Amino acid sequence: MPASLVVQKFGGSSLASADRIRHVAERIGQTRAEGAELVVVVSAMGDTTDDLLSLAGAITADPDPRELDMLLATGEHQSATLVSMALHALGVKAISLTGAQAGITTDGRYGRARIANVEPRRVRAELDRGNVVIVAGFQGQSEAGDGGGEAETTTLGRGGSDTTAVALAAALKADRCQIFTDVRGIYTADPRLVPDARQLRAIGYEEMLELAQLGAQVMQVRAVELGWVNGVEIEVLSSFETAPGTVIREDPLVEQRNKVRGLAHDRNVAKVTLLAVPDRPGVARAVFEPLAEAGINVDMIVQNVGHDEATDLSFTVPRAELRRAEGVLNPVVAELGARGLTTDPGVAKVSIVGAGLHNAPGYAARMFGTLADAGVNIEMISTSEVRITCVIEEARLEAALEALHGAFELARPDPVDAAAAARPA
Amino acid sequence: MPASLVVQKFGGSSLASADRIRHVAERIGQTRAEGAELVVVVSAMGDTTDDLLSLAGAITADPDPRELDMLLATGEHQSATLVSMALHALGVKAISLTGAQAGITTDGRYGRARIANVEPRRVRAELDRGNVVIVAGFQGQSEAGDGGGEAETTTLGRGGSDTTAVALAAALKADRCQIFTDVRGIYTADPRLVPDARQLRAIGYEEMLELAQLGAQVMQVRAVELGWVNGVEIEVLSSFETAPGTVIREDPLVEQRNKVRGLAHDRNVAKVTLLAVPDRPGVARAVFEPLAEAGINVDMIVQNVGHDEATDLSFTVPRAELRRAEGVLNPVVAELGARGLTTDPGVAKVSIVGAGLHNAPGYAARMFGTLADAGVNIEMISTSEVRITCVIEEARLEAALEALHGAFELARPDPVDAAAAARPA
Repeated sequence: MPASLVVQKFGGSSLASADRIRHVAERIGQTRAEGAELVVVVSAMGDTTDDLLSLAGAITADPDPRELDMLLATGEHQSATLVSMALHALGVKAISLTGAQAGITTDGRYGRARIANVEPRRVRAELDRGNVVIVAGFQGQSEAGDGGGEAETTTLGRGGSDTTAVALAAALKADRCQIFTDVRGIYTADPRLVPDARQLRAIGYEEMLELAQLGAQVMQVRAVELGWVNGVEIEVLSSFETAPGTVIREDPLVEQRNKVRGLAHDRNVAKVTLLAVPDRPGVARAVFEPLAEAGINVDMIVQNVGHDEATDLSFTVPRAELRRAEGVLNPVVAELGARGLTTDPGVAKVSIVGAGLHNAPGYAARMFGTLADAGVNIEMISTSEVRITCVIEEARLEAALEALHGAFELARPDPVDAAAAARPA
Repeated sequence: MPASLVVQKFGGSSLASADRIRHVAERIGQTRAEGAELVVVVSAMGDTTDDLLSLAGAITADPDPRELDMLLATGEHQSATLVSMALHALGVKAISLTGAQAGITTDGRYGRARIANVEPRRVRAELDRGNVVIVAGFQGQSEAGDGGGEAETTTLGRGGSDTTAVALAAALKADRCQIFTDVRGIYTADPRLVPDARQLRAIGYEEMLELAQLGAQVMQVRAVELGWVNGVEIEVLSSFETAPGTVIREDPLVEQRNKVRGLAHDRNVAKVTLLAVPDRPGVARAVFEPLAEAGINVDMIVQNVGHDEATDLSFTVPRAELRRAEGVLNPVVAELGARGLTTDPGVAKVSIVGAGLHNAPGYAARMFGTLADAGVNIEMISTSEVRITCVIEEARLEAALEALHGAFELARPDPVDAAAAARPA
């Protein structure tokens, strides 16, 4: 039987000190001793990225994106070399590679580059030489001539190391892709808020995407998407303990189980309402175009059905951008002849997530009923294929989560998890 | 008249904080405003290199040289991007390049790579785009296929940024190469020990080499050699004040002046003597081969003329390596049948330096006489084309320097300096 190939990714908190790096190296050494070929993707140590951002901020308020990417990429270079050294100290053959050396080419968008191609010739060659290959995550190199430019270091944005790991797993046709984090895996709800919350053994890609987008900050959304497109099974697990994690994969058991897989929530929300907006074509564009130009991310949008010539238009923005949004919208209100603008920074989103929810209307009704019984007022509603989200008063968030966790019996293991637990590790 | 091209190098102490980086950027901006094309080579910020070495040391006692080079090279990447950002903040167009991007190819000797070639295509292109080009010093990239290997990041060893600057100045045929340091230039003696010490306006390459090798830690020896071979005029000057520095160049005025240009000294010396070594062929090899194999740098060697069948053999080693040298030599003493081994860690070297000294025996006599008059005992003597060095008791070093500085009238400006002061800046 050929050796299996495993891609592992370790985040910054797992690498925050020399001691932790040695601990990570021991874990890698164990997997290696079991005979697997290993590619290990690393983030920068601890707060390195934030420290480098502060340093740049002390030099200039507006750092050049190209220079910033060159600067930030050094954090992962450093941790990659240190993990490699720690493996050598354990007698494990290892070599560190930059993103460029690992064959990760990107487009030229600094700070938020997309991976254009992975050509892991060198990674494969180093594996063949018997090395554990440590790859600096979060970065790649743009192709020379892309837009007439030179080959430049680019970064993939926050959490980009997850994407590096999944992209390498896909390109190398790895047997497993393990994302080591500071949590044990994916839970039915945030265990800090819902004591009954239970770890899931498996979750579908689409469900995970909704959870990730809604504030379960365990994995980067793009990495999950990339895994989905390429069929890479991703395991999320703890770097601090030895326990099975949660596997993200195509879910063959959707039809057989409780459709609600977990609860997500997001406190980083503010609600904006334009009052009595005239009901005529072009209004939405007049509102949302200037927000987009200002780079403000608008999320849920609800327009009440007009019963006269004016309607209220509500939407949510990240809480930190509320002030800027007001600045952009005040002239728009005047221009459109709307009655005014109200804002509410004290709201939160709560969601039930599960594949197939959309085609099972009973779940929506149960969610709304549960919240009503718990005395939680629903201010806005939106739905997707795998999610129903309500905007509620932030002060009632915990009560809402507890009530929903009970109502959907999330504390009880379901057949998916039983099946996942039975699968060979 | 075409714009002049200037290469400037700033060391780590000039870049130790965000404030100092902004100050350096202002200086660069001034030179740029005068119309010069500018390439700026930077070292890592402050103690960054030492901090990274400590971090590696906390992981393993014996870091892999390849990984260590990847790690250390990040220090210069960081400072290069930050200087570039600081220039942007002043409205000066700038771009940072890694050693590899700047076209600096090296051999594959990690930690002490030699520059194999400089192909500054990209540097030239960025200059043509109107950029100040900031180059990460101290590093290059080995050529793929060099020894069958892959292209790897290598570092040039301590002080390597000086070499980067001089190599780029040579490849770009720069009009000037300025090395900014924390001293004003080269002095006739260490001003902390000799109050009368005077800054030189100009000094020859060979003289500078002897001064650098003997402990005037202003510039890296290799950088001076490279400047000599390529005819690059190097100016050493202070990054903290605006004052003319010292120019290192071919010296056309050797015949006309005081041959002694300055005094050098080195406290990092220990003396080793093998007593009554049999006077037969192969003895020197038996002593120095094992020292070389142990990587111990032997400097001055003096063998007394044998008046019977045994002679004393003395030499100096760096003080930190004395203990190891003893360990290597004890078996050799037994094997050779020498009478024993004595060591003295309390010695120092003092030298007079000046082109043409070797052909002017009067200087040696005056040096020995001056030391004798000052009550300084000479333990060993060695000479080169441009230097006469005496090993003396360390406790008498300051007295020796003061006496020699007076005897050779080094406080009085000589014609070379007058000529240099008159040359256009």
